[in-house]
Amino acid sequence: MNRRGYFITLEGGEGAGKSTLLAGLRDHFSQRGVNLLQVREPGGTALGEAVRSIVLDPALAGISPESELLLMFAARGQLVRERILPALDAGQWVLCDRYVDASYAYQGAGRGQPADRIAELERWACAGLKADLTLLLDLPVSIGRARAAGRGAADRIEAEADAFFERVRNAYRDRAQAEPQRFRVIDASLPPEQVLNAAVEAVAHLFEANT
Amino acid sequence: MNRRGYFITLEGGEGAGKSTLLAGLRDHFSQRGVNLLQVREPGGTALGEAVRSIVLDPALAGISPESELLLMFAARGQLVRERILPALDAGQWVLCDRYVDASYAYQGAGRGQPADRIAELERWACAGLKADLTLLLDLPVSIGRARAAGRGAADRIEAEADAFFERVRNAYRDRAQAEPQRFRVIDASLPPEQVLNAAVEAVAHLFEANT
Repeated sequence: MNRRGYFITLEGGEGAGKSTLLAGLRDHFSQRGVNLLQVREPGGTALGEAVRSIVLDPALAGISPESELLLMFAARGQLVRERILPALDAGQWVLCDRYVDASYAYQGAGRGQPADRIAELERWACAGLKADLTLLLDLPVSIGRARAAGRGAADRIEAEADAFFERVRNAYRDRAQAEPQRFRVIDASLPPEQVLNAAVEAVAHLFEANT
Repeated sequence: MNRRGYFITLEGGEGAGKSTLLAGLRDHFSQRGVNLLQVREPGGTALGEAVRSIVLDPALAGISPESELLLMFAARGQLVRERILPALDAGQWVLCDRYVDASYAYQGAGRGQPADRIAELERWACAGLKADLTLLLDLPVSIGRARAAGRGAADRIEAEADAFFERVRNAYRDRAQAEPQRFRVIDASLPPEQVLNAAVEAVAHLFEANT
């Protein structure tokens, strides 16, 4: 492949510890001298942040599953074209807080949108860009929700019922099982240092591949 | 068909006189005792108006054609499910300022998005809803732009070059030719009363079909 940067995505349900791991990984990359771009979904562009404010607004509870899926891919495609691809082409590594797997999990398994519909959007809306490595923070729903509950008011998606998040978790695990080369499943019930160590170990394989 | 209301869409380029015609049609329906819902695209719902402010914002000139298409269908699908279908089911007639033909014209011919991609979105994002009658206000681009120029600052789409609007106009005309049963092409260079008369005449066929 021509590009030099690697594209790493981070996935996981509510309360799985994504923010803590992101901070740890950022330090790790900094120590290794990696020029890193960190972005989040939906967001990372003017369009993406506008979409973020729409899809997380509790007042917009009536958004149809179809429109939610379209909004997510509108934001995602813009992020890919405007920031991720240029960064990768320039040799930066990119660490993205959620990517297409999140749509298979949330809009697909969670809200019933067909997987082939999502795959089609992935193909043309995201220019076919796939992650080189996906870190999945896996955690029983009850534990994750108990952790997230301490954070204050729930956004529109956090307000869903447990059954929704069970479907999301199972979809993530199924995808990891189907693509073991790309995924690294990390037990998010472990202490933060051990979660970080597991992630660093997974990332180390990319460094080896890159030298 | 089971529903009693008719779904009428209005299409046309910049300065074609859509607003004037909409006002005239509203009066006409009112006089005939038709319970009418008038909506516009993108818009008509909380989500749709939020999307409208995004896609027309001149500061967001870098939106990719793919994301623009997705945003338009996110708004459109929401409008269909939240307002248009319930209104039609309740026996209301619906008059919509732009609908899917606008995406074939603007995002398709204008910005190069493939027609089959748009057709696929039309199928699932809009629940397959098609207009019963589409009024196309056709006008040479130069005349339309001269009319629209008097309105003040151009939005992001109005700021496009003439070649863009020529492609839009040709796409509309091609679609009208391909579906003569659904379309009524109206010469928008005629005086407003004659434009309204032509529209009223086209609508009259729906009244006849409805009795």
